[in-house]
Amino acid sequence: MAGALIRPAVEGIPEYVPGKAVKGTIKLSSNENPFGPSPKALKAIAKEAKKLQVYPDQKATLLRAALAKKFQLAPENFICGNGSDDIMQTIAATYLNPGDEVIISKNTFSVYELVSRIFAGRLVFVETKNYEIDLERIAQAITDKTKIIWLTNPNNPSGTVFTAQALEQLLQKLPENVLVVVDEAYVEFADCKDLPDTIKYVKEGKNLIILRTFSKYYGLAGLRIGYGIAKPEIIKPFFKVKMPFNVSRLAQAGAVAALTDKTFLKKTYKNNIAGKKYLYQELDKLGLEYKKSEANFIFIDLKRPADEFCQRLIKLGVSVRPLTSFGLPEAIRVSIGTGEQSKKLISEFVKIL
Amino acid sequence: MAGALIRPAVEGIPEYVPGKAVKGTIKLSSNENPFGPSPKALKAIAKEAKKLQVYPDQKATLLRAALAKKFQLAPENFICGNGSDDIMQTIAATYLNPGDEVIISKNTFSVYELVSRIFAGRLVFVETKNYEIDLERIAQAITDKTKIIWLTNPNNPSGTVFTAQALEQLLQKLPENVLVVVDEAYVEFADCKDLPDTIKYVKEGKNLIILRTFSKYYGLAGLRIGYGIAKPEIIKPFFKVKMPFNVSRLAQAGAVAALTDKTFLKKTYKNNIAGKKYLYQELDKLGLEYKKSEANFIFIDLKRPADEFCQRLIKLGVSVRPLTSFGLPEAIRVSIGTGEQSKKLISEFVKIL
Repeated sequence: MAGALIRPAVEGIPEYVPGKAVKGTIKLSSNENPFGPSPKALKAIAKEAKKLQVYPDQKATLLRAALAKKFQLAPENFICGNGSDDIMQTIAATYLNPGDEVIISKNTFSVYELVSRIFAGRLVFVETKNYEIDLERIAQAITDKTKIIWLTNPNNPSGTVFTAQALEQLLQKLPENVLVVVDEAYVEFADCKDLPDTIKYVKEGKNLIILRTFSKYYGLAGLRIGYGIAKPEIIKPFFKVKMPFNVSRLAQAGAVAALTDKTFLKKTYKNNIAGKKYLYQELDKLGLEYKKSEANFIFIDLKRPADEFCQRLIKLGVSVRPLTSFGLPEAIRVSIGTGEQSKKLISEFVKIL
Repeated sequence: MAGALIRPAVEGIPEYVPGKAVKGTIKLSSNENPFGPSPKALKAIAKEAKKLQVYPDQKATLLRAALAKKFQLAPENFICGNGSDDIMQTIAATYLNPGDEVIISKNTFSVYELVSRIFAGRLVFVETKNYEIDLERIAQAITDKTKIIWLTNPNNPSGTVFTAQALEQLLQKLPENVLVVVDEAYVEFADCKDLPDTIKYVKEGKNLIILRTFSKYYGLAGLRIGYGIAKPEIIKPFFKVKMPFNVSRLAQAGAVAALTDKTFLKKTYKNNIAGKKYLYQELDKLGLEYKKSEANFIFIDLKRPADEFCQRLIKLGVSVRPLTSFGLPEAIRVSIGTGEQSKKLISEFVKIL
């Protein structure tokens, strides 16, 4: 009977498939930080916990001030969320009318589709080019009904980036009243030169929202804290539309502290560079096709059923992500772990190739 | 320019006005637990924090199992949220089509209106009867377009309950395909006999969703954790519609522990009963009109501008809630604090009456 009650708009939502966490295995399936949470964040959380009977600050004032300082922007340029998922939902709630078109790249992170379906947007999927987000095709898909373009840079799961020039060209073709969302969940790991300077576009007043998270680089996936950056006109309505107390006290305090945890962040960055280098080398030896990554994971085109492969790898003690739920049933995504974890991954990999 | 982009549906959302937290004052404005957070929850949080780099369990398996045990129901009867606000939003996302009617009592908690507006529901407000939720009038407001009826028991801010008999009568008149949501955020504080047995209706398979929270009784408002109880058919779609990782690891672990914190909960309950008794006595002496409360706060009909009164009280070191944002500009809501806090409240109250 409840079946009859459900909104048609949400009936088509596919189930979210998370990275597997199997006890006793090394988890390289969710792009988590192999060094654990930021130690500075943990200290701040322990202190803040004593005040947990009190509601959190609706406006995340201290965190937004810290972010403003970091980016040389104003607090009014920032919104904080219960993970960046929460901000994606608020963006759609605020700006997406039923029937408005959203443009989404195929084979990417699934929450853009989820929130767009919830608000009854019309989904326009655009093919990737060699697994990479194709901004030219995206520009061609724009119509006078387009409202939101969801982009990811570096992309999940390909790990690739689109360049400053490519984004510039898209923005030049952008009609008024179209919002571009650039999810930069992995941007702190990038080490390429031609990454778009999205902050510049915010300063210029473009209709662009940057999303960032504390889940990856800062090691706080379990805490749920992300943020959005845009011009104040875009941000302001979010404070009415979001749930009043969406970000916990611990998330606010932990994030403020994590921002200053230089030792931890440097270690995380260095390990990621070294891990990628090692894995490229080993994957080359194994003759596997993969993408050079600007994130903390590597996309591998296995050219064989990934689900079965990943099941076998789990039995050997390593959990990686089959990309079946991303529409890529013969590819996997492998998170960069510690040096030791990467070695273990390769040594088990060899056994089942 | 962003102004032109905003959905008409959300333009009318009023700003949420939280209880004031003024440094150096006693905060009796947000119905928080005066004894702080559950100590057992704090221990569990400290332990869980070490795993914060890992994403939370999407399904809150351990917490739902603990709740199932507590209520003698199945885990499939439960959904957990980032506060019960988050569940309200998921309920509307799953079941409320644009133009569907929602029935909301006037002068009550504002998030029912917020989530209903976000999903473009047609709001039907029903007058209260002497500040209490009037289920007879609500029954009269049902049409063939009604989809959700939002109820609060005990009600915020009146502190009153509707009886088992009154709810029974409403449910008998309920058309198929109408969902009744009963927000029982304060129910653990009730000490009356004729409280509706809402769990019974869930067991009977009625279209009824109960909402509960860890924010009040368990002292965890800053952690963000609430839960919903309904038949599995109603609950199941929420797992597709909610954001995948909506409940943090710390919220899940803290809530499981708080459920077993008997000493803390008993102390909280006893203090509340004693606090109400003391305040009734003192308010009687002062000749003030108030409502007998089944919650952890008392509604007082000041019959004078509440905002100004509350401002003066803040200057004397006590923060209480003016009910202007509830549409009641001459009434206030006072949380039950510790015995000492209640004495301070009354001694300052006397000075400005």
